[in-house]
Amino acid sequence: MTLKRKKIAVIGSGYTGATAAFLVAQKELGDVVLVDIPTAENPTKGKALDMWQAAPVQGYDAYITGTSNYEDTKDSDVVLITAGVARKPGMTRDDLVQINQNVMKSVSKEIATYSPNAIVIVLTNPVDAMTYTVYKETGFPKHRVIGQSGVLDTARFRAFIAEELQMSVKDVTGFVLGGHGDTMVPLTRYATVGGIPLETLIEKERLDAIVDRTRKGGAEIVNLLGNGSAYYAPAAAMVEMAEAILKDQKRVLPAIAYLEGEYGYHDLYLGVPTLLGATGIERIFELTLTEDEQQALDQSAKAVEEVKNVLK
Amino acid sequence: MTLKRKKIAVIGSGYTGATAAFLVAQKELGDVVLVDIPTAENPTKGKALDMWQAAPVQGYDAYITGTSNYEDTKDSDVVLITAGVARKPGMTRDDLVQINQNVMKSVSKEIATYSPNAIVIVLTNPVDAMTYTVYKETGFPKHRVIGQSGVLDTARFRAFIAEELQMSVKDVTGFVLGGHGDTMVPLTRYATVGGIPLETLIEKERLDAIVDRTRKGGAEIVNLLGNGSAYYAPAAAMVEMAEAILKDQKRVLPAIAYLEGEYGYHDLYLGVPTLLGATGIERIFELTLTEDEQQALDQSAKAVEEVKNVLK
Amino acid sequence: MTLKRKKIAVIGSGYTGATAAFLVAQKELGDVVLVDIPTAENPTKGKALDMWQAAPVQGYDAYITGTSNYEDTKDSDVVLITAGVARKPGMTRDDLVQINQNVMKSVSKEIATYSPNAIVIVLTNPVDAMTYTVYKETGFPKHRVIGQSGVLDTARFRAFIAEELQMSVKDVTGFVLGGHGDTMVPLTRYATVGGIPLETLIEKERLDAIVDRTRKGGAEIVNLLGNGSAYYAPAAAMVEMAEAILKDQKRVLPAIAYLEGEYGYHDLYLGVPTLLGATGIERIFELTLTEDEQQALDQSAKAVEEVKNVLK
Amino acid sequence: MTLKRKKIAVIGSGYTGATAAFLVAQKELGDVVLVDIPTAENPTKGKALDMWQAAPVQGYDAYITGTSNYEDTKDSDVVLITAGVARKPGMTRDDLVQINQNVMKSVSKEIATYSPNAIVIVLTNPVDAMTYTVYKETGFPKHRVIGQSGVLDTARFRAFIAEELQMSVKDVTGFVLGGHGDTMVPLTRYATVGGIPLETLIEKERLDAIVDRTRKGGAEIVNLLGNGSAYYAPAAAMVEMAEAILKDQKRVLPAIAYLEGEYGYHDLYLGVPTLLGATGIERIFELTLTEDEQQALDQSAKAVEEVKNVLK
Repeated sequence: MTLKRKKIAVIGSGYTGATAAFLVAQKELGDVVLVDIPTAENPTKGKALDMWQAAPVQGYDAYITGTSNYEDTKDSDVVLITAGVARKPGMTRDDLVQINQNVMKSVSKEIATYSPNAIVIVLTNPVDAMTYTVYKETGFPKHRVIGQSGVLDTARFRAFIAEELQMSVKDVTGFVLGGHGDTMVPLTRYATVGGIPLETLIEKERLDAIVDRTRKGGAEIVNLLGNGSAYYAPAAAMVEMAEAILKDQKRVLPAIAYLEGEYGYHDLYLGVPTLLGATGIERIFELTLTEDEQQALDQSAKAVEEVKNVLK
Repeated sequence: MTLKRKKIAVIGSGYTGATAAFLVAQKELGDVVLVDIPTAENPTKGKALDMWQAAPVQGYDAYITGTSNYEDTKDSDVVLITAGVARKPGMTRDDLVQINQNVMKSVSKEIATYSPNAIVIVLTNPVDAMTYTVYKETGFPKHRVIGQSGVLDTARFRAFIAEELQMSVKDVTGFVLGGHGDTMVPLTRYATVGGIPLETLIEKERLDAIVDRTRKGGAEIVNLLGNGSAYYAPAAAMVEMAEAILKDQKRVLPAIAYLEGEYGYHDLYLGVPTLLGATGIERIFELTLTEDEQQALDQSAKAVEEVKNVLK
Repeated sequence: MTLKRKKIAVIGSGYTGATAAFLVAQKELGDVVLVDIPTAENPTKGKALDMWQAAPVQGYDAYITGTSNYEDTKDSDVVLITAGVARKPGMTRDDLVQINQNVMKSVSKEIATYSPNAIVIVLTNPVDAMTYTVYKETGFPKHRVIGQSGVLDTARFRAFIAEELQMSVKDVTGFVLGGHGDTMVPLTRYATVGGIPLETLIEKERLDAIVDRTRKGGAEIVNLLGNGSAYYAPAAAMVEMAEAILKDQKRVLPAIAYLEGEYGYHDLYLGVPTLLGATGIERIFELTLTEDEQQALDQSAKAVEEVKNVLK
Repeated sequence: MTLKRKKIAVIGSGYTGATAAFLVAQKELGDVVLVDIPTAENPTKGKALDMWQAAPVQGYDAYITGTSNYEDTKDSDVVLITAGVARKPGMTRDDLVQINQNVMKSVSKEIATYSPNAIVIVLTNPVDAMTYTVYKETGFPKHRVIGQSGVLDTARFRAFIAEELQMSVKDVTGFVLGGHGDTMVPLTRYATVGGIPLETLIEKERLDAIVDRTRKGGAEIVNLLGNGSAYYAPAAAMVEMAEAILKDQKRVLPAIAYLEGEYGYHDLYLGVPTLLGATGIERIFELTLTEDEQQALDQSAKAVEEVKNVLK
């Protein structure tokens, strides 16, 4: 019999990692191993224990453990990478890339050793380049190394629209291509609310403002928090992707996928619409873009390419 | 304090009514009173008791009772009408309309007496005309008398698409205007899968076939069952509308609404996109239709009008 | 990678089987194949299709199909058996046993052929004897052939207590040993409401009346329905057991288990407290009983033994 | 019509408050207003916005806002108080009591002004004394001012038992009386796993160790985290109480209730078994205690009394 609980490793026990672990447990997707470096082992164990103590109240049968020993992640089905540092004042983008690249290298080695069949979802920024790094360092096939950005960007867009229109978030659909953040490409002509084209519900000016706010969604939260960055929505986004894979849901979600010619790009991880199922990315959808959209995507790809070139 | 459980009356304890009661309880939307005529009182009580015995296992705190006494529905917040007969061999459409019109008259009187502030959702066929009857007979304001058809038609459309494409039902959006059944108007140009236009994913011929199958979705089930009609999806559709209202979700859902000039129709209940919230139908969306769509809608409205004219 | 959707076969597409299929889908435990005999193939397909059309509304990614071809159940992880006839006027108990025994024989052969590694849960009455039959006919190890009765009996007991005390079903715990129905042995001294001993909350006389009502719980529903028997709570009970197994939850639930010396019985399927996890029944708990309880259990076992002796 | 979304105010936007807000939203209990002091206004807004951006992914229609203006909490149905400081090195218990008492005074005034009909749940430590303070300062009737401790203590106990036995948290029941922490009184003779008495499943020595670990459960997390205290399980515990009230579930849960003679105490807030429903604490259950248990409860009450005497 092959029935047994799934196993999900969450690398990095900061706010995003901890929240992701909690959401995985709530959904009873499997048992969770929360991993961080040895100096953070005790807080990691503390968070895991606290979540486990919430299980009887929330009613989930999912065991959560904290560790700094990757052996404990052995045979994970899915690995969520949230480890790495955030950009701090005085740090150049290239500094950030190099620090987090080293984190990814170290993490990838552990994953390849202990969970050679895992599907990996990367959240660490700059996420396109970090996903590329994990792909190279694990040596996993491309469909098993996936980056998160579009689900989050889309979620922000949908939340802003729902708020603007005072309508249910359940009915707002939307869709974002390209890199995370400034250069993302929201395809507003495909967005609807309950099937009604968004462009008929909101004036262009307001819609443009919302698109702009979406692009800067991460920075808005950073500025408000003062110290730290968003973690609820990012964690939820990652976990939705993980759920799609663990339950073989065949979801159509934007994800950072390795491109080999799609949309005209090669050897690049970029945000595109994908089909997520049991084997990871099962399909990349190639949309026919308008000239404006293709241009925006090219710009986004160029920005991603530049960061990739910083990688060593 | 005004905190207390909501109360939902379900009129008609056949398969659809019973399933609707069960779904309401599962969602803990409130306590449920399942009502049928005196000769069906015992089976109604039996079904309610059976559902209540499922509560400890399914974990819902919602009390379900069966009755033939409308006094037990007193002060319901939402009333779901599933009562009435189905068309049988040898019965003309006009016969059906008159029998069910009488059922609606009788039911409306009871609702108006015991739950004068309730919001009413009608499922009984022919649903456009029956909703009209309940509107007239209860004397309730139009926003509190609503018919169900579009959520079900859309659900069928989405299920067929998901099956065809082998993609998640969660990501297929769609949208249906007009009367229930043969004359419904699916707006395929607005349908997407995860934001990707449906028309780019399925060939026109297949899509036309799916639209056609959707139109005849009710008959397909009737033919398969041999004896009886669909109830899982119809009940789920009704309950989604009830949930939107009871939780004030501001859902954008197709519903049969009373038109006073919208889309060019007057004094007619017809399926249109609506906003459902705490007060019932809070808004009707008027879409700009293509010529073909408008023509299809006109035909649908005409069919609805004809049935309405049979009402006495 | 071994990630893929689980598969659950439900044998028998009557009310209980159909409801079980629906509950499995709602919980996204896996894809469901609803099976019935060839003459019932179309209605089975109709019910499955209706449930599938509810998926977009209820939001579950679980595909439901109807069939009369056991090949479609190939490699099911869990099989739920609801097939068989109900006792009708003029039918002796022995008639019933023999008819359903033949059904179990036929079904067991198909299961053994197409899903040799499945875990089987039996609901068909008389359930102790039918579970025994499936055990013998499939040749499966005892931990993979399980009967349902205690979860349902306990659910009824809990529902009656919750109603009596007007307290949440979530907080009422209880527990039933022995055969299904008249000879079941509710262990009221272990029952609590939110940890408060039940015996301190209800007078003995009322509690005895509730125990008695629980014993006759099935008949109460049969009498009310007039035509047919309970299916919501029985289906929910089965599905809770299936969920425990499919998600490896290590639930402590009463189940009909094959005894080899436990409680002093041999070669008998009887309702006892068990641990349900990925491999089926993972442990049988032997409680220390009072003299009265042991006597009641002996009587229950004797009744089960008598039915077993009717088997051919 | 009185149908509209419920409103829940969460006072204090630290980890516990933020997590509580998130859990309330996930359950769609109503809209959430997260409140903190003016200097924390921006981070509070940031957390609320982040949670709102998770709504489209998690699928909840609950709007979450952050503020430092109590006017925004106007007409809340339930208020959760998590505000206050944690004990720091060098701070005496009496210092802590006085600082947090002042916080409670200030908060109570705002609640009484803006939400005079609210039901208030207090989590701030020392929770028995702080609940007493809120009771006095709001002037609310006793059934509308409730402290949280027993649900959390019980959850920890249940989690430890589930871990020890490797059984589902869903089936472990338990129950804790008295003050929070060192002097809590777990009633192990009433605890069961799936109805099986706990004392028959675990040796006394191990059970005593688990009881002891439960008593020190808060400190264990504090020591692991190094900097801060538990928040997942505490927030989940509060929200379970809030849900019981908002949905009128009639849950039987331990809560800190105002005693006027129950268990022999007067004018004291102490952890006892209660019935939680639409009006708050609807009943206090008086258990018959063993001599040992009564003695332990007296000791617990004495400790609570001592802290109360520090209040000014």
